Amino acid sequence: MELLKKKILDEGIALDKNILKVDSFLNHQVDVNLMMDISTEFYNYFKLKKINKIVTIESSGIAPAFATAYRFNVPLVILKKQQSSILSDELYETKVHSFTKNSDYMLTASKKFLNQGDNILLIDDFLANGEAVLGASRIFKEANCNLAGVGIVIEKSFQPGRDKIEKMGIDIYSLARISKLDKNVIEFK
Amino acid sequence: MELLKKKILDEGIALDKNILKVDSFLNHQVDVNLMMDISTEFYNYFKLKKINKIVTIESSGIAPAFATAYRFNVPLVILKKQQSSILSDELYETKVHSFTKNSDYMLTASKKFLNQGDNILLIDDFLANGEAVLGASRIFKEANCNLAGVGIVIEKSFQPGRDKIEKMGIDIYSLARISKLDKNVIEFK
Repeated sequence: MELLKKKILDEGIALDKNILKVDSFLNHQVDVNLMMDISTEFYNYFKLKKINKIVTIESSGIAPAFATAYRFNVPLVILKKQQSSILSDELYETKVHSFTKNSDYMLTASKKFLNQGDNILLIDDFLANGEAVLGASRIFKEANCNLAGVGIVIEKSFQPGRDKIEKMGIDIYSLARISKLDKNVIEFK
Repeated sequence: MELLKKKILDEGIALDKNILKVDSFLNHQVDVNLMMDISTEFYNYFKLKKINKIVTIESSGIAPAFATAYRFNVPLVILKKQQSSILSDELYETKVHSFTKNSDYMLTASKKFLNQGDNILLIDDFLANGEAVLGASRIFKEANCNLAGVGIVIEKSFQPGRDKIEKMGIDIYSLARISKLDKNVIEFK
């Protein structure tokens, strides 16, 4: 998506080999019209998949996922991150390792909002190691939902997330694929 | 807002005198079209205020705030909750007490995204004790921004939040005002 790549080059701040700050339009301040353009890209790619639910992971995926749910005219479900296990008959729960923060968290969803036969498009802001996506996919499997696709705003293609997701046979579409990051260096695949 | 009140009565779950769960359309699953209707209500009320920025507090305010930013065609800024102080020259930071969780957190914003002269509409999902709104208002004052209004989706009118905000002379508009909560009891003002 050229508009997004331009925005990343103009406003993104590459701090080192791993960290790209896009606080000015995606994670802290949000460019609402850009999110709507992003949702159109996801719609055009996934529109034949009969998506009936958009799912994201709190909290920085919410803005692009909300726009995408609006575009598809389906509900949005936000998976929650919990500090510790809160085992409950009413919840799906799975442990996810965050390489960014070097810690684990519990990803949870109320059983009420994931129903057998749901055809889900998972939207997230970043893809790096893919652990959050894999965690979400474990929850969908437990809920007998189908993960029809994964839509990512910014993919760090030099990290293993995409490989893991493709190996599961899941259709993944990333709007910007970054092949190299370094201090003040941003290169696209 | 009658549509919202109907949704609260149909789908809200009153657990006790303080807790109303609206997980099915606002906090966990999000009814995107309802959020758009909500944004139109906020727009009609605040449209003459020359709002140039919508601000919310992560994470359950993001969905209605995103819709409102889209309706006003202005950027959205998401204030962040941090577990502990992360003093930095680049951040505004203030301590907020959460009565719900009986703990404190640090509310932060990058200085880059709050500019002198900004005319801000603050949007949040719930208003109870008003401590989050007061914390945000301290940050806006430090940034020389004007808090032109506060838009709340669901107000617990039996708690002191509204009084505190009105005493500061801030224009507040709540779409649903709940006068009484109890197990399986929801009454509107």
